This record gives sequence, C-alpha cells and structure tokens, in this order.
Amino acid sequence: MSSSDFEITARNKVVRRPHRGKYDKATVYDILDAAMLCHIAYVIDGQPYCTPTAFWREGDKLYWHGSSASRMLRNQITGIPVCVTVTHMDSIALARCGFNHSINYRSVMAYGTATLIDDPQEKIDAMNNFIDRFFPGRTKLLRAATEKELKATSFVVMEMEQASGKIRNERLHDDEDDYAIPAWTAELPLRTVLGPITECPRQSLGVVQPPEMSAYQEGRRFDEIMLETYRQHYGQEG
Amino acid sequence: MSSSDFEITARNKVVRRPHRGKYDKATVYDILDAAMLCHIAYVIDGQPYCTPTAFWREGDKLYWHGSSASRMLRNQITGIPVCVTVTHMDSIALARCGFNHSINYRSVMAYGTATLIDDPQEKIDAMNNFIDRFFPGRTKLLRAATEKELKATSFVVMEMEQASGKIRNERLHDDEDDYAIPAWTAELPLRTVLGPITECPRQSLGVVQPPEMSAYQEGRRFDEIMLETYRQHYGQEG
Repeated sequence: MSSSDFEITARNKVVRRPHRGKYDKATVYDILDAAMLCHIAYVIDGQPYCTPTAFWREGDKLYWHGSSASRMLRNQITGIPVCVTVTHMDSIALARCGFNHSINYRSVMAYGTATLIDDPQEKIDAMNNFIDRFFPGRTKLLRAATEKELKATSFVVMEMEQASGKIRNERLHDDEDDYAIPAWTAELPLRTVLGPITECPRQSLGVVQPPEMSAYQEGRRFDEIMLETYRQHYGQEG
Repeated sequence: MSSSDFEITARNKVVRRPHRGKYDKATVYDILDAAMLCHIAYVIDGQPYCTPTAFWREGDKLYWHGSSASRMLRNQITGIPVCVTVTHMDSIALARCGFNHSINYRSVMAYGTATLIDDPQEKIDAMNNFIDRFFPGRTKLLRAATEKELKATSFVVMEMEQASGKIRNERLHDDEDDYAIPAWTAELPLRTVLGPITECPRQSLGVVQPPEMSAYQEGRRFDEIMLETYRQHYGQEG
C-alpha cells in the first residue's frame, strides 16, 4: 500500500467480484468528482437512514451541508459513522438469459465520521467552496451570506478513513451456447446531460453566462461538467 | 390517513421543509417506478453501509437481488432494518446569493425489513419480474435460469412499513433586494437519457428490437422509459 491508495480493511474491501474493486485514490477521486449527488447512510437508534444530498471533495475530505434544522444534520453534530456512496449508471446490458443481464457503472463507497464544522472561518470557506467547486469563480459575483443565513446552514466534514471504488465496464456477453437464442440483445447506454438552460427572466441588463462557467452547455454530459469544474476550482491535482 | 397514504411516524416524517413531504402512495409509487437504481442503507455491527443496486416495486413491496456471496445479501438473510432511497435530480437553480442556490428533485425514502426470499416459486417469480418489469415480455424470449444460476442469485423483499416522498419543484427566486446584483442566474435542467443503442454484433439474423421494448429509444428520458415499462408490465394501477 502506498499513500496513493486507500488502506484495505474489512469495511471497504470489495467482497463480491473483487477484481472490480479500486483502492487507488486517483480512481476513487475521479468517480467522486464527476458527481454532485451522493447518498449518505447513517444510523439513529439502530435505524438506518439513506439521505441524498449534494457534496464535494477536498483532498481526502468529503463535505456536505444542510439546514441546521434537518434530522441528518442534527444527528451528525456529535460525530457519527457514515457511509457516503456515489453511483454513475453508465449502461444496461441485455443478454440471452436473465443471469447475464447487467449494468455498467462506476461507484464509490467512502467511510468515516461526519462532524459538524464549528470554526466560523472554516465554515465560510466550506460555504464558498460549495459554490465555487460547482460554479468556478461564482462566489465573488454573489451577495455575501447574512448572519441569519449562516446560522440556518450547517456544514459537515468527513475524512475518508477508507474508501473503495467499483467499476464494471464490460461489453455484452452471453454463454457460448446461448448465442443461438433469438432474443434481441443490445447495450443501452445512459447519460445524464444538461438540458436547455433557462435564464432568469429578471437577468440584469448585459449580464451573460461567465466564461468561467462555460462548462455548462446544453447537451453536455453532467459527469464531464462536474470533473471539469472541479479541476477549474481545485486544479488538476485536486 | 386513508389506505392510499403511508402512515406518518417519526421515522418517515419529513422534518425539514415539511410542505415538501408527500405521503400519498400514488406520488411515492411514481417516484419509485421512474427509477431502476436505488441506494440501500443498512447496518452491520453499528457500521452503516450504503449500497447502490437495481430494484423494483410490486404493490407496497420493494425487491432487489444480488449475488448470494455479497456482503449486503449475506446480512439481509436474517431480516434487518433498511432504508431504500431513490433520487431524481431534475435541475440546479442558480441565484444571486449562495443561500438561494438550490436543486429541484424528487426523492423517496422507504423503511422496512429486508428478508431473503426462500420459497423457490416466489424466487422464480421475482427473477422473472426483475427482467419483465424493465423489459416487458422479455423473459419468454430468454433461456431459463439454470440450477447453478438460481443458487448464485439471491432475491430480497422489503414491505414498505413507512415511506415518504419529497419533491422540490420551484422556479428561480432571489430575495427582492438581490435582483440588482449582476450575477448571471439561470436554471440548469438535468435529464438522464438513453444514448445510442448498440446491438449485439452476434445478433441472430432477422432479430429486431421487439415492439414490447419500444420505450427504449435513443434520446428518451430514462425516468419516462421506467414509468412506461412499469405500467406495461404491471398495468396502470401497479
């Protein structure tokens, strides 16, 4: 294990199809940075919850935010174990028997302890990165947060103690004896793309889409926009 | 509460922005049936896990499958509490301050106990529905599962004891005093669509995309394909 890999433990080891497991940080980072949405598992009184939310990465830390009034945030104040999962569904593979139907995907499961950000400056930095990581250079154009807004919003940080990626990227295949079966078979690719941008009807005169946000173009893949804006904000090394 | 609504308890009550909470089954079903992918939270020895997987609904039951060797499935054999979450990200709303940036989404969090399907006939029914729910009429074209394949695959069922939907579908808005701020502001819609279908290079002569799978057309929204195929298989009432 080098420092460019996540440590492999019972918690993050890919049990099923271990050859699909990825522990190198470059691969894990790329899957995370290509997303805005994650799902967070946490436990309250023995009951698991799975909450979807926007997140971003900085080094080996994951960040998210929420209303200070939310159940998830209220319970993450004291530091609780969480699992943060990101999934990209890339395609569906049909086959000539049920068993060989499959999905190509890229996913990450990351483990750590979610802790509320208390320090006021750290919180403001997180708030600004939350905007600028997705929309490079944007915070400098915005009205600053008010005291009331700051109070209403909580930010959470989780150091990734372990993480693993899992990638399936296989072509269609059937058992050799099955190719004679006349079932229509195909790969059905999926992509999440940006639809037509609707500008605010009260846009200030002369204000246009800033060049720093040029990644956002109708029809572009969202995972590519996410990776590109990530690198604009944090640099190639992230 | 009528039988067309989920009971509201501490577990499924939408705490933050309660006006966005939806407990009527028709709304919850539509959000679930528009998806193939869910994220499942469960707990092993106090550690939460969040696993992405394909799922489908039948009545108030959710089903998924997995390798009999997988960590999730091995732990769900005995009946453990889970939370199944489905999320559709519909658009990103930019605003003139950080606080008013937002995401339009549809999500469901469903709670229950995951139990392995033991009964052989129930398992075969689940296996067939898993294919036909997504690809109507398909199982009759396929080679039947072998004993070995049946053994290698486990199916899990979860009765939804409670569930809640949450929908945000708002237009762009800023605080009235902020409209003078010359930050470019827009709604950025997202859609997951089917890319170009790649047929199997070893397709049997004369075999074409069956009319029962006509929902799968390049460029169509995947959530619409999912709803349409669901209703083809289970009928309008689901």
